[in-house]
Amino acid sequence: MSQEKTRVAICGYGNLGKGIEKEIAKSKDMKLVCIFTRRNPGQLETASKVQVVSVDDMPNWVGKIDVVIMCGGSATDLPEQVPEYVKYFNTVDSFDTHAKIPDFYEVVNENATEAGTTAIISGGWDPGVFSMMRVLFDAILPRGGAETFWGPGVSQGHSDAIRRIQGVKDAKQYTIPIKEAMDSVRNGGMQMPKLTARQKHLRECYVVAEEDADLTQIENEIKTMPNYFADYDTTVHFITEEELRKNHSKMKHGGTVIRSGETGDGNTQNAEFSLKLDSNPEFTASVLIALARAVVRLNKEGQIGAKDIFGVPIGYLSPRSPEELRKKFL
Amino acid sequence: MSQEKTRVAICGYGNLGKGIEKEIAKSKDMKLVCIFTRRNPGQLETASKVQVVSVDDMPNWVGKIDVVIMCGGSATDLPEQVPEYVKYFNTVDSFDTHAKIPDFYEVVNENATEAGTTAIISGGWDPGVFSMMRVLFDAILPRGGAETFWGPGVSQGHSDAIRRIQGVKDAKQYTIPIKEAMDSVRNGGMQMPKLTARQKHLRECYVVAEEDADLTQIENEIKTMPNYFADYDTTVHFITEEELRKNHSKMKHGGTVIRSGETGDGNTQNAEFSLKLDSNPEFTASVLIALARAVVRLNKEGQIGAKDIFGVPIGYLSPRSPEELRKKFL
Repeated sequence: MSQEKTRVAICGYGNLGKGIEKEIAKSKDMKLVCIFTRRNPGQLETASKVQVVSVDDMPNWVGKIDVVIMCGGSATDLPEQVPEYVKYFNTVDSFDTHAKIPDFYEVVNENATEAGTTAIISGGWDPGVFSMMRVLFDAILPRGGAETFWGPGVSQGHSDAIRRIQGVKDAKQYTIPIKEAMDSVRNGGMQMPKLTARQKHLRECYVVAEEDADLTQIENEIKTMPNYFADYDTTVHFITEEELRKNHSKMKHGGTVIRSGETGDGNTQNAEFSLKLDSNPEFTASVLIALARAVVRLNKEGQIGAKDIFGVPIGYLSPRSPEELRKKFL
Repeated sequence: MSQEKTRVAICGYGNLGKGIEKEIAKSKDMKLVCIFTRRNPGQLETASKVQVVSVDDMPNWVGKIDVVIMCGGSATDLPEQVPEYVKYFNTVDSFDTHAKIPDFYEVVNENATEAGTTAIISGGWDPGVFSMMRVLFDAILPRGGAETFWGPGVSQGHSDAIRRIQGVKDAKQYTIPIKEAMDSVRNGGMQMPKLTARQKHLRECYVVAEEDADLTQIENEIKTMPNYFADYDTTVHFITEEELRKNHSKMKHGGTVIRSGETGDGNTQNAEFSLKLDSNPEFTASVLIALARAVVRLNKEGQIGAKDIFGVPIGYLSPRSPEELRKKFL
């Protein structure tokens, strides 16, 4: 069996890359071949002691790897790396800069098609599994409306934004969905409410301030920050470094996609999907691993070019045979 | 646009067929061409006044129909009809006799492959959308466990079983999931509980008895009926015909698929999908219509033979273009 395992490489060794390394070690049908890095490979110590390889050396690994899971950030890493590396390997990524997805798709599709490789773009849970649910719900309940709620969970971007304020030592921001808003969508049907950002989510901030900082000033800066906080009801709690470490270290997250639609003569039909995650990056890692399995299959079938999660049959994500799936899961 | 609409026929005109007729009338990309019946076509009055055609006349309709949605029952209709009619048309069905699905798949696949048609078997919500969720959850959270709960909702089969008891005039049976069991699965993770039938669901029966019937005898017969009730905690309420009609006429149903898994070093990750339906047959109809759209696309691409829902990309269920899906739903 061992030689039939899918040979995986990871590109980028942050929280996501580390999560993938851990999960692949426990997977029965995949093995980790190496980790690609833009740093000096000698300086990177990995948990699994797997070989670390410079990205410059990538072309030499063609034929030894079935898929590269791209674990860089969406701001600068992925838009640069995926179009380049897909020239050599099948790839899976979690590119999530929403407005740029169509352009990203085009360039990845062009390069992959030319190279004969396959890329699944924008995997993970949102974009990813949540996106799948939105499309499924829209297809099976076309008359109605839907909303996505995020949290309760830690938003890395909002936490970072607070940390950039003068006088802030550290911070953690929780996005919290508002139950009344969720219920109004559940009961919405054909009269789906139009919800504002403020009506859908609260923002709760836990802030460690420098010793001599002006707390009123910090709180005010947070609450009035455009895009990040100004459009929300935001609460700010000042806590100690110790409390932050003790109570707010996990990267919990989750969310809910709700659709309420109508069929026939006014029958209400509701569908709902939710995630409750202890570790956001580890769950994203798990989804990307399943997509890595799928991308290798697609490529073997001759389905080359870029794909999104809407173009991948669910069965391709599973290590089980079609016969087993029909027998045990249908 | 009108000539590009997907041309649909319905085979079988019960609750399901009627639901499909209603939804297609509201669909933008599909139109109903005819209803096939085994009865005398002249005796069937349809809501939409669409043409009614004898199944014997089916071969004459090749080229005029893109897909036939099979709306017969799983006990005898579908196992007979689908293998036969797939020789002429692409089909979608909701065959749900679980133990017989593998054999059903084989014969439909053989006949469809020979004819160059495509069939999606066992669509609907369970089997169907729930099955998709079970496979998705198993693929993205491989370490963990899952359970499916059904209801609260009306079970047609159990209601029928009660109606066959002597002295029963009419009856409705509700399957009710037990909250404690659902919570134990949500908290299960790697220590997923093994639940018995009795621990997972209650059965609640509303019975209209004949005037001179022995109620104690009826209640006892229900509660001890093997397979249907003996393995469950069952409650029986005797009500009037009037009450049954007033309070229990809707075919409400629904259910929940829960998975609790683990990633990394003991992080719990939960995924949950649920449906809450005012009309079970109308929702099944909606899913079959989306699958009908998909089966036509698969066939046009040359993907012939039998498929299950695990082999269909989600995007194929949607009337929207891949570009629109990427832009608005990813």
